[in-house]
Amino acid sequence: MPGAFYSDDEVYRADLQRIWRAGWLFAGHGCEIPKAGDYFTLEVGSDSIAIVRGSEGVIRGFYNVCRHRGSLVCTEAAGHAKKLICPYHQWTYGLDGQLVACRGMGDDFDKSQFSLKQVAVQEFEGLIYFSLAKNPWDIERPREVISTLARAQGFANAKVAKSVDYLVKANWKLIWENNRECYHCNVNHPQYIKANFDHYNADDTTPRIKAQIDAAVRRAEELPNVVDPTATRKDGGMTSFPDVENNIWYSANRTPLVDGYVSESMDGKKVAPLMGDYGEFRCDTLRIRTLPNFWNHSSCDHAVSTRLLPAGPQLTSIRVWWLVDADAIEGKDYELAKLVPFWQLTSEQDWEICERQQRGVNSSAYSPGPYSKYKEYNVDAFVRWYMKLLGVKGIEQPPARNQFDLSK
Amino acid sequence: MPGAFYSDDEVYRADLQRIWRAGWLFAGHGCEIPKAGDYFTLEVGSDSIAIVRGSEGVIRGFYNVCRHRGSLVCTEAAGHAKKLICPYHQWTYGLDGQLVACRGMGDDFDKSQFSLKQVAVQEFEGLIYFSLAKNPWDIERPREVISTLARAQGFANAKVAKSVDYLVKANWKLIWENNRECYHCNVNHPQYIKANFDHYNADDTTPRIKAQIDAAVRRAEELPNVVDPTATRKDGGMTSFPDVENNIWYSANRTPLVDGYVSESMDGKKVAPLMGDYGEFRCDTLRIRTLPNFWNHSSCDHAVSTRLLPAGPQLTSIRVWWLVDADAIEGKDYELAKLVPFWQLTSEQDWEICERQQRGVNSSAYSPGPYSKYKEYNVDAFVRWYMKLLGVKGIEQPPARNQFDLSK
Amino acid sequence: MPGAFYSDDEVYRADLQRIWRAGWLFAGHGCEIPKAGDYFTLEVGSDSIAIVRGSEGVIRGFYNVCRHRGSLVCTEAAGHAKKLICPYHQWTYGLDGQLVACRGMGDDFDKSQFSLKQVAVQEFEGLIYFSLAKNPWDIERPREVISTLARAQGFANAKVAKSVDYLVKANWKLIWENNRECYHCNVNHPQYIKANFDHYNADDTTPRIKAQIDAAVRRAEELPNVVDPTATRKDGGMTSFPDVENNIWYSANRTPLVDGYVSESMDGKKVAPLMGDYGEFRCDTLRIRTLPNFWNHSSCDHAVSTRLLPAGPQLTSIRVWWLVDADAIEGKDYELAKLVPFWQLTSEQDWEICERQQRGVNSSAYSPGPYSKYKEYNVDAFVRWYMKLLGVKGIEQPPARNQFDLSK
Repeated sequence: MPGAFYSDDEVYRADLQRIWRAGWLFAGHGCEIPKAGDYFTLEVGSDSIAIVRGSEGVIRGFYNVCRHRGSLVCTEAAGHAKKLICPYHQWTYGLDGQLVACRGMGDDFDKSQFSLKQVAVQEFEGLIYFSLAKNPWDIERPREVISTLARAQGFANAKVAKSVDYLVKANWKLIWENNRECYHCNVNHPQYIKANFDHYNADDTTPRIKAQIDAAVRRAEELPNVVDPTATRKDGGMTSFPDVENNIWYSANRTPLVDGYVSESMDGKKVAPLMGDYGEFRCDTLRIRTLPNFWNHSSCDHAVSTRLLPAGPQLTSIRVWWLVDADAIEGKDYELAKLVPFWQLTSEQDWEICERQQRGVNSSAYSPGPYSKYKEYNVDAFVRWYMKLLGVKGIEQPPARNQFDLSK
Repeated sequence: MPGAFYSDDEVYRADLQRIWRAGWLFAGHGCEIPKAGDYFTLEVGSDSIAIVRGSEGVIRGFYNVCRHRGSLVCTEAAGHAKKLICPYHQWTYGLDGQLVACRGMGDDFDKSQFSLKQVAVQEFEGLIYFSLAKNPWDIERPREVISTLARAQGFANAKVAKSVDYLVKANWKLIWENNRECYHCNVNHPQYIKANFDHYNADDTTPRIKAQIDAAVRRAEELPNVVDPTATRKDGGMTSFPDVENNIWYSANRTPLVDGYVSESMDGKKVAPLMGDYGEFRCDTLRIRTLPNFWNHSSCDHAVSTRLLPAGPQLTSIRVWWLVDADAIEGKDYELAKLVPFWQLTSEQDWEICERQQRGVNSSAYSPGPYSKYKEYNVDAFVRWYMKLLGVKGIEQPPARNQFDLSK
Repeated sequence: MPGAFYSDDEVYRADLQRIWRAGWLFAGHGCEIPKAGDYFTLEVGSDSIAIVRGSEGVIRGFYNVCRHRGSLVCTEAAGHAKKLICPYHQWTYGLDGQLVACRGMGDDFDKSQFSLKQVAVQEFEGLIYFSLAKNPWDIERPREVISTLARAQGFANAKVAKSVDYLVKANWKLIWENNRECYHCNVNHPQYIKANFDHYNADDTTPRIKAQIDAAVRRAEELPNVVDPTATRKDGGMTSFPDVENNIWYSANRTPLVDGYVSESMDGKKVAPLMGDYGEFRCDTLRIRTLPNFWNHSSCDHAVSTRLLPAGPQLTSIRVWWLVDADAIEGKDYELAKLVPFWQLTSEQDWEICERQQRGVNSSAYSPGPYSKYKEYNVDAFVRWYMKLLGVKGIEQPPARNQFDLSK
């Protein structure tokens, strides 16, 4: 895409409006807020959102803005509260967002009109999504697709072993374009390519590699613990995603690991106890992606979630979580030094790539180049998905900066 | 007010033009520049201003910009100079701003045309005000009101014991709104509420508290050292201020302290020798406010001044000064560790509140909430005062962002 | 010039377009990249440029942006590479910018269409210039003028002894205006004025100084090692530069030093071995200037280059290099502690001046003042040169902010 798409304020505002405030955003994991009153906050652009576990286990989302004078209500990144009390004048909201106390407003004050503004929330299989839209995208089909495969992973019975926050100096779309191809893996991800076949493509591999992939796929298909029988494991490489023609912004699948690898770890060996319903150390990898802000790579023993949040035209806030079974004990059942490096290295390698690309596309000399048809089909699919949502027709003839029609 | 009033560049520029460049701004204290040639500088937006004590004690204000090539002339935050010499080419101005030397410009150069651009200055009772306006607001009545009460405090015979500078990430109006109510005091200001009645209101208090306030007021009225007899001490709580209908942007009054408190200190005990004309440790508190940038709380033994200066749409530069009698000696007559904490804590508690509120009002979900009629009447008054000056009519129906008519 | 010329985004963009992307920019020294494959990078606004020594010694310049997805290709400030390999997908360019490998793009991919975008480069006498313009300014005459005088200095047989990078909070034009007069030298440059006559002017000096200058000029003219006989040394002060009427944006000349000084060093003594063709420690100073981004002061034993690059409306990236003869050995033939201070102090004194001036011209009260006719004629010439290029007519009546006609 032309450079303006990665840098202009106007495009950034359109992204917020037409994508970030229209779709479903991954928030975090249900296991992060196990008890009623547990909450965490996050920021989409300049909107602070609180995700709160209510009574009877229901998770709700609220704009984290007091209805009185607009102060942030929840002031911590995560915490626990019986009621949500604004620190300014102690307006007090129930865990359902209802205003229950506002000392000083008089007896005739109608509290029912001043609940926290709620946002739609969906939790399934331990994954929490929310939407800032009045009429968000349909969630039924993605819920079904993801749930079918994610169930066995046991996200709902997991715990966060570690999380790391990044502020990456790159537009969120560059980070997705990077995620949507493994053309860059060979040189940039020495750890990742030892475990995976993604960097190969059916028409790009030697007969020897092709035979390895076929064997891995066959092996996977024969395993007794195929806990999600709808999953296909035919491909060893990148899953085709997204699908712009069918408005598919979500996907989940299992992908075989290289022979000898039971987990995406530095040496391929297990780094934690089995998660979920897996009966043995062999389930390949579960992979989930939902646009615009989430992907997950899960092995039999741990799962790694990545969440993007837009922080500016050239700035993206990223959190990476490592999850293990809820009963696993650090130091006894797992060591962070073995659990974390594989995806920490792979992630940080990508952030560095994206920051370099941001600096390049900021150049007046940058013009979009050609994609590899068999290695970057997913980047192309992502760009077409994005352009469709933004309402921009065609980028073969890149328009001059500031000349996109963003008025619709 | 709608969120745009606290964040938009356009509103910020309108604020600078219609308020900061129209009204009277508190600059500092006469005792900070006791001798001819003493000066200090400050910044209103991008305008550097120098306040200079001239010969015969006259204080003048100048745009701190050389008439030659525009360099800052006074380069220190405060200093002493016989002449004001531009560090670039040594154009030299007298303490009255007249250009007296400009080596290299030739003998026929008419120096009289290149004085420093002067700004209006008023000093009374040791308080220095300046205005960037050609026709500033009327100063006679505020001078009279403030002088009558401030005289006894002895600002003119004081010294600065301590000052602290803050850069607060909040629009200046949020800081005033915070200042104009004590609805937030109970939980946020544990030190402040031990000394004061502000957080109570006549119709909000128990009979016991009401009796305490009445007793404090009676006691105050009977004191022999009522050095400013025009001051009423009828109210124990917030003074009504500002008064938009009468264009009142200034006020001064005395307010009783809680029984047992002679000073706004951590334990209510004196922390320095008596200031000014006070005959004993009992004068309650003198309070002065002038919009848009000054408030002062004075006890019998010390005074605390707070000055706001706008540094951006969401950024305010704040200085807090602690003053004591000019003859008081640190370590002997007063200890900073006892003098400073009461207002340092109270101030910093407020800055934190305002920064949280700024983040909240930046949310796309923020909309102005209702004010408490008997606890936030002054916030309402402040907002109406502001709206009137800005030329905006009515905020009951908050306009969409960027749709305020700021063209007048 | 009115303040907007030094601060507005719109003017900054016009500067980039009409000057920085139209003229010739100094890049660095040939001796910094002596071997094929040596390169360095620099940034003009948001454009990263790579300057690369190719085979057979040819120096080329490229936009440092991969033709595939726009990543920066050369990621280091300086380095050596046999090929220029994009770190993202390893698209590989020859030292001539031709795309030579792009694994994964298919056999039918036409690599010839995806060379790195080239920028014009000129190297003469060891100085490297480049231009981002399609039709850059004429370079023949400046090349001739500069080469004639620069040849004897031996830049082509030099080495960089030291370089220092600065990020100066001032518009690039303020830095030039500062450079174009020595009216400010007396007080600000105590080291510089001990070595030079620049701060004097023919009609501004005492008979004693005038006699000294005349003697210095005579002495210079009689020296046997006048290696560039076209150079005039008639003036002891500032050279008239630029010449707006004749579109002269370049100049080179020799200027006598004060008696007793053989080098621009702290004590005037030599600080390194003779450079170039100089036969003895007596060649006065060679001075070169090319707008918009280069000046150089060379003594017989060392040379100091200064390069400006625009980094924002109020931000300029500056590098200062100290060069000595290629065979000189640090610690034996020269000491950095003696070589560097003269120009490091002088430079940093100027950056401080310019940052103070930037703060002043940002004031709403700033209006352009009068220039000294015999001390600031070059500032006036620079401003007229700039205005002509920008297409702005006349600044006697400074227009209101944002009212310049920049549409042409």
